[in-house]
Amino acid sequence: MLLQTSCDFTFDITEPTPFVLMLRPQSGANQWISSQTYEIFPTTSVTEFTDIYGNLCQRLVAPPGKFAIYTSTKVITSDYVDEYPGAEFVAIQNLPEEVLIYLLPSRYCESDRFSQMAAEITSGELLGYNQVLAIVNWMRNTISFEPNISDTLVSAIEVKERKYGVCRDFSHLAIAMCRSLSIPTRMVVGYLHGLEPMDLHAWFEAYVGNRWYTFDATQAQMKGGYVAIGYGRDAADVAIYNQFGPSLHPATQHVHVEEIKA
Amino acid sequence: MLLQTSCDFTFDITEPTPFVLMLRPQSGANQWISSQTYEIFPTTSVTEFTDIYGNLCQRLVAPPGKFAIYTSTKVITSDYVDEYPGAEFVAIQNLPEEVLIYLLPSRYCESDRFSQMAAEITSGELLGYNQVLAIVNWMRNTISFEPNISDTLVSAIEVKERKYGVCRDFSHLAIAMCRSLSIPTRMVVGYLHGLEPMDLHAWFEAYVGNRWYTFDATQAQMKGGYVAIGYGRDAADVAIYNQFGPSLHPATQHVHVEEIKA
Amino acid sequence: MLLQTSCDFTFDITEPTPFVLMLRPQSGANQWISSQTYEIFPTTSVTEFTDIYGNLCQRLVAPPGKFAIYTSTKVITSDYVDEYPGAEFVAIQNLPEEVLIYLLPSRYCESDRFSQMAAEITSGELLGYNQVLAIVNWMRNTISFEPNISDTLVSAIEVKERKYGVCRDFSHLAIAMCRSLSIPTRMVVGYLHGLEPMDLHAWFEAYVGNRWYTFDATQAQMKGGYVAIGYGRDAADVAIYNQFGPSLHPATQHVHVEEIKA
Amino acid sequence: MLLQTSCDFTFDITEPTPFVLMLRPQSGANQWISSQTYEIFPTTSVTEFTDIYGNLCQRLVAPPGKFAIYTSTKVITSDYVDEYPGAEFVAIQNLPEEVLIYLLPSRYCESDRFSQMAAEITSGELLGYNQVLAIVNWMRNTISFEPNISDTLVSAIEVKERKYGVCRDFSHLAIAMCRSLSIPTRMVVGYLHGLEPMDLHAWFEAYVGNRWYTFDATQAQMKGGYVAIGYGRDAADVAIYNQFGPSLHPATQHVHVEEIKA
Repeated sequence: MLLQTSCDFTFDITEPTPFVLMLRPQSGANQWISSQTYEIFPTTSVTEFTDIYGNLCQRLVAPPGKFAIYTSTKVITSDYVDEYPGAEFVAIQNLPEEVLIYLLPSRYCESDRFSQMAAEITSGELLGYNQVLAIVNWMRNTISFEPNISDTLVSAIEVKERKYGVCRDFSHLAIAMCRSLSIPTRMVVGYLHGLEPMDLHAWFEAYVGNRWYTFDATQAQMKGGYVAIGYGRDAADVAIYNQFGPSLHPATQHVHVEEIKA
Repeated sequence: MLLQTSCDFTFDITEPTPFVLMLRPQSGANQWISSQTYEIFPTTSVTEFTDIYGNLCQRLVAPPGKFAIYTSTKVITSDYVDEYPGAEFVAIQNLPEEVLIYLLPSRYCESDRFSQMAAEITSGELLGYNQVLAIVNWMRNTISFEPNISDTLVSAIEVKERKYGVCRDFSHLAIAMCRSLSIPTRMVVGYLHGLEPMDLHAWFEAYVGNRWYTFDATQAQMKGGYVAIGYGRDAADVAIYNQFGPSLHPATQHVHVEEIKA
Repeated sequence: MLLQTSCDFTFDITEPTPFVLMLRPQSGANQWISSQTYEIFPTTSVTEFTDIYGNLCQRLVAPPGKFAIYTSTKVITSDYVDEYPGAEFVAIQNLPEEVLIYLLPSRYCESDRFSQMAAEITSGELLGYNQVLAIVNWMRNTISFEPNISDTLVSAIEVKERKYGVCRDFSHLAIAMCRSLSIPTRMVVGYLHGLEPMDLHAWFEAYVGNRWYTFDATQAQMKGGYVAIGYGRDAADVAIYNQFGPSLHPATQHVHVEEIKA
Repeated sequence: MLLQTSCDFTFDITEPTPFVLMLRPQSGANQWISSQTYEIFPTTSVTEFTDIYGNLCQRLVAPPGKFAIYTSTKVITSDYVDEYPGAEFVAIQNLPEEVLIYLLPSRYCESDRFSQMAAEITSGELLGYNQVLAIVNWMRNTISFEPNISDTLVSAIEVKERKYGVCRDFSHLAIAMCRSLSIPTRMVVGYLHGLEPMDLHAWFEAYVGNRWYTFDATQAQMKGGYVAIGYGRDAADVAIYNQFGPSLHPATQHVHVEEIKA
């Protein structure tokens, strides 16, 4: 399907404020960027670089006053999400090198503390895709999706205790459990067509059957319409913006995703 | 200045033909891509990757029939080109690692054969920027710019003998001489506002005074309006498209650059 | 000084066990590897790769039975550690790209939770090196170094509560606080000449005054004799070995560091 | 087999001379470095970095006077070279990204000028491995191996005209022809056990049947005992040393390879 996505922010800046943004989706295995805009007001010197995960990031110093970022993308993405129950666990020695980092624990995914819990939840499952599916199903039944209650970033351990969370919390807990089973798992941040309420979204990918498969524990049914902006070990790596200096909240933030019919 | 650039190709394809394209300019030190489009007809599966020089490349297999590629970019680029006569030669041991590769000879820049010639042309010059300038000036006086006579790719040695060439020939000869003086030099392919006749363009950058400076031996006066698409050691690395299988020429090719006044 | 280092492990393997090892120090800014050995018994197929931080890692599957790894290095390292009180904080916009990742929170360094504590500890200090020094001094006075009490990996938050720890705990807490002040900080694992009791060691580096400086909160006086094996965001990234499958402890482990006098 | 290799150079330096060396073989798919030494006299500050092809390179400035480099390696390498007649040509669209650069022409391999010649030599052959073999056989019958006549670096076109050459000339001509057939091909520099006369050696690898295969047009029979030091597009990329400033020849150079029997 052809989607039009947009993400806009405005800030009231009181002192020169360095930002690192991650707001330029790239063409990849599952999506083709046919058009995009990225505008900043007032015009500011921006440099772009590629981070260690391959994401395009933008650096700038926002000047005092009203500061606005407008981005939009026209992107061709898949109508459905590949699902492959039975896809096999990949033995560590057969994993591609670039995938190994996604086995390690990370800030919000303390996979070193979830071995027993993940083993119990996936007990009796075929190793690989089906284990991930069992984790996703367990989460849907156990953790309450509360898209509007997002204060600060909490980690998988804290999500497990709270028993509720936003999309990134769902991803963190699922990732922590998958990694504890030696399944490489990474976080994705981006857009999802039809998300309610519309916002930026987070989901995860697990490497089984020799490729990455998409999972989203917040959705009862997997549908197409995902647009990835960034990949990383967890939310610490794929912040849409990191801002330095005194803490700052957007004055306004708008996310919009719309299908363009031929 | 704010420029609108476009580059379109059509091909008549007779058998499935693999392409590697380099048609997506990136934001960088000197330019900010505020908007871009990249469309392919008929719709074809495309994957994008980053080459070893950091350029974004697109891979696809063109199906038989009419095949079209339309790209356009709105880009903020500098109104002038930084010039800095006197910028000093950087001793090899002080060069950043990523710059070292641009000291080596390459397919069309046989720098290992130009030491004596480059030494003569730059004799008496201050080491660094001024040597590059002496080479550029020598070229303007010695090599005839013939933008319409482009058959096949020729190398610096051949350009020196022919004494005429297109923009990439000028770059190759200048690069070969600069590298023979141990000045890191790289080729840039992209757009130039006001180029006559309008076409894709090639120029070069030399690393002196601890940064890259832009040079263009085809222009009597350096002006702003450059938009880089790709960087590499020479034209072999920065082809706008590489096509595999039986040789193929574009049925049509259009390049357009226009200033957008506020 | 010229050091001879060695690190040997033996394991009793009961089933084929995948390992990712990080046991080959590389020559770098502060050390030159003049000789090294790396032997594995029984002979096993090993592949080596470079991780995203630039560390050399070795992958293998240990066969059942006695399994041994012997490594040793002759390395020229500095007689002293560069110290530079007053080295300035580097504004985010002036940091090299490759350093930015070391601003982010990580598994064992929850820098997003230490802003207030770090601000208090470094209150009144000149921004940069002196803030790091204030943190190191606070740790020496507050956290008890207990090199022999190492059960499982604990994070900076847990170390702060326990008030004791091993070398990696000291690093984690210091790193978390430095990052919360927007100072890029990374963990180093390796050898330290004269360490008591001798073992593998962990310390950290902070990026101030436009370069990395070495800090070690476990040592009352900084001396030379550090040999780095790996760099990363925290202990999750620089494990000397990651082993997959049922948990396994070394049957024997020996670390030795000796100065070779000319 | 277990080999002991060594390569030593001495130079008489008259002024401070920057070097970039490539003398540290790495463990890889086909070889495991179990021990190595790398010593420089007089002791000089050296920094090591990884180039864009993944080779370890060493930078230093040689001081005036006698300057010596001693390197040796104990390496486990294969007893034989994998041969696989019939291994298939890989369609461009199926090549891994990192292999694409080895399709491009380079300084000493003007593959853009060899299409017709390569097509004739490989006429009737199965696409892939067998084409490479036909090129190797043609070279053995046509080009005379003259290991002692090495003046300056010449390119594939020049080798074709001369009809004689050293090992790197053989590689360059074979690489140029393979690439003109859209087979990714790369140069390897290193050691070969039993080479007569003993010296550093050059050979090449072609990517067919979804992996790299080793070829050596200078050897009537492929045997094991190859130790790779560096990989690149051609000799410009894999110089054992690049020296800058007034040209300089080694006062002495010794290469030694010996099998260590158990």
